[in-house]
Amino acid sequence: MKRPALRLVEVGPRDGLQTAGSAVPTTAKVAFVDALSLSGLREIETGAFVSPKAVPEMADSAEVFARIARREGVTYSALVPNEKGLERALEAKAGKISVFTAASETFNQKNINASIAESIDRFLPLLTPARKAGLPLRAYVSTAFFCPFEGRVSPAAVVDVVKRLEELAFDEYSIGDTIGRASPDDVRALLDELLKVVPAEKAFLHFHDTYGMAVANALAAWEEYAVSGFDASTGGVGGCPYAPGATGNVAMEDLVFAFAASGGETGVDLKALQAAARGLAAAMGRPPASKLSHIAI
Amino acid sequence: MKRPALRLVEVGPRDGLQTAGSAVPTTAKVAFVDALSLSGLREIETGAFVSPKAVPEMADSAEVFARIARREGVTYSALVPNEKGLERALEAKAGKISVFTAASETFNQKNINASIAESIDRFLPLLTPARKAGLPLRAYVSTAFFCPFEGRVSPAAVVDVVKRLEELAFDEYSIGDTIGRASPDDVRALLDELLKVVPAEKAFLHFHDTYGMAVANALAAWEEYAVSGFDASTGGVGGCPYAPGATGNVAMEDLVFAFAASGGETGVDLKALQAAARGLAAAMGRPPASKLSHIAI
Repeated sequence: MKRPALRLVEVGPRDGLQTAGSAVPTTAKVAFVDALSLSGLREIETGAFVSPKAVPEMADSAEVFARIARREGVTYSALVPNEKGLERALEAKAGKISVFTAASETFNQKNINASIAESIDRFLPLLTPARKAGLPLRAYVSTAFFCPFEGRVSPAAVVDVVKRLEELAFDEYSIGDTIGRASPDDVRALLDELLKVVPAEKAFLHFHDTYGMAVANALAAWEEYAVSGFDASTGGVGGCPYAPGATGNVAMEDLVFAFAASGGETGVDLKALQAAARGLAAAMGRPPASKLSHIAI
Repeated sequence: MKRPALRLVEVGPRDGLQTAGSAVPTTAKVAFVDALSLSGLREIETGAFVSPKAVPEMADSAEVFARIARREGVTYSALVPNEKGLERALEAKAGKISVFTAASETFNQKNINASIAESIDRFLPLLTPARKAGLPLRAYVSTAFFCPFEGRVSPAAVVDVVKRLEELAFDEYSIGDTIGRASPDDVRALLDELLKVVPAEKAFLHFHDTYGMAVANALAAWEEYAVSGFDASTGGVGGCPYAPGATGNVAMEDLVFAFAASGGETGVDLKALQAAARGLAAAMGRPPASKLSHIAI
């Protein structure tokens, strides 16, 4: 199978920091995004325009967007839950809009207090105005392998949700292993079904490294299915609300190293990622949770 | 490819502790080995009978062997460099003898002050007495993918060494990614050649997780080549002398989880491994370096 060039999406400033479990000053977030912009990464999910009550870590997203030094060729995206969030994202000049649902009813209910169908209804009104503003649309489908409440999630459940989203013509889907428990076999089982309903170019895989299988999963998807889109978080920033002490998103630098070691083109400078990870770690007072942060390269 | 039952070799008490960078009391080592014995692991490299000047961390190996509570069905092996080491291993009632060489001349020279040929000459006199004592023989072939001094090591170089060892009729080979830099492609390239000269049953892979690819490598070797023998170190104990702060051997519990999640039979109880890792970590005053140590299972 031909191994395509990688399209890596940095989700540290949003998914990472929203579960990092400690307050990060706005200045450190801005410095983190700016450092990431210099690495060659072409997409950075920079913040979320959600209720500050629900997600206090993202309350300063407008300020982060206002203060970053935007670099040409880099897309700074934002997660939004509803029309009000979209308005704020447009004001902040976000370059892409992400919305959120899940493949597990129980998870969606506990996470955003809505059924899967309701969560889709909520972001329906966003689609036309986002498109009018020229912004691409991404949909997160979380708990695509395992749910912390329901256990294993079937590929069919994921495909059902993605088919519904395809009717809405999203530009891409981020398929999430929210609790980081999928194995390469689980990835194969899902991709066998998922790629019947969406082209590989629209499928991004979003692995958490809770159980240490994220790199193996990403390589399997890329080598065997030519999936080229992967989310990751520089410095492995973030945690797992369902496993205290565990890591969150797979570390971007570890993924970049593994792809490069396997002949992949990432366009990303590892030293720049290391610098970004170290800067954020210093601001947070904890070491980066990545293998590559310990290596001189 | 049929996925065989796994044969996991615990190397934490030897390879792990010898590079852990801090003194571990004999009592803690004995407790670690005893805890490991209860996990279902069937082989534990318990110590090394080497010069205490060269490897002070292993100076108490005889005492460790004397004090452990031996469990039926578990092999307690020892690394020995020469005849004197073998004598001490026999006195200690080690159940298997390991010797050590490398695929990189520079590494072998710097590590044990001998060429590859000289290192083989040194352990030649051990073979007959070890066999007379009924002990199986393992040979480590380190730097089988990358050398910290020479860079990439060719599969041909590894095959040359293994062929020489095959003439000596070793029972098994532990093929080591000493600096933890191999990718699944590197594993495939080596196994494509190696399995022409030894059966898969005699090949054990010994991955370090320095760059975060060890689990991916192990799964590739097992799923695609039916290699079933893997070394690992519970709690991920150990470091990398060539990358300060980096981890060493891949964590046994992470490997066990990944194999089990992929339908593999390991015979190992994860909770017992977690308990062993936590006990050692408490004695060493540092948290285990494994993903699974953060997970309630």
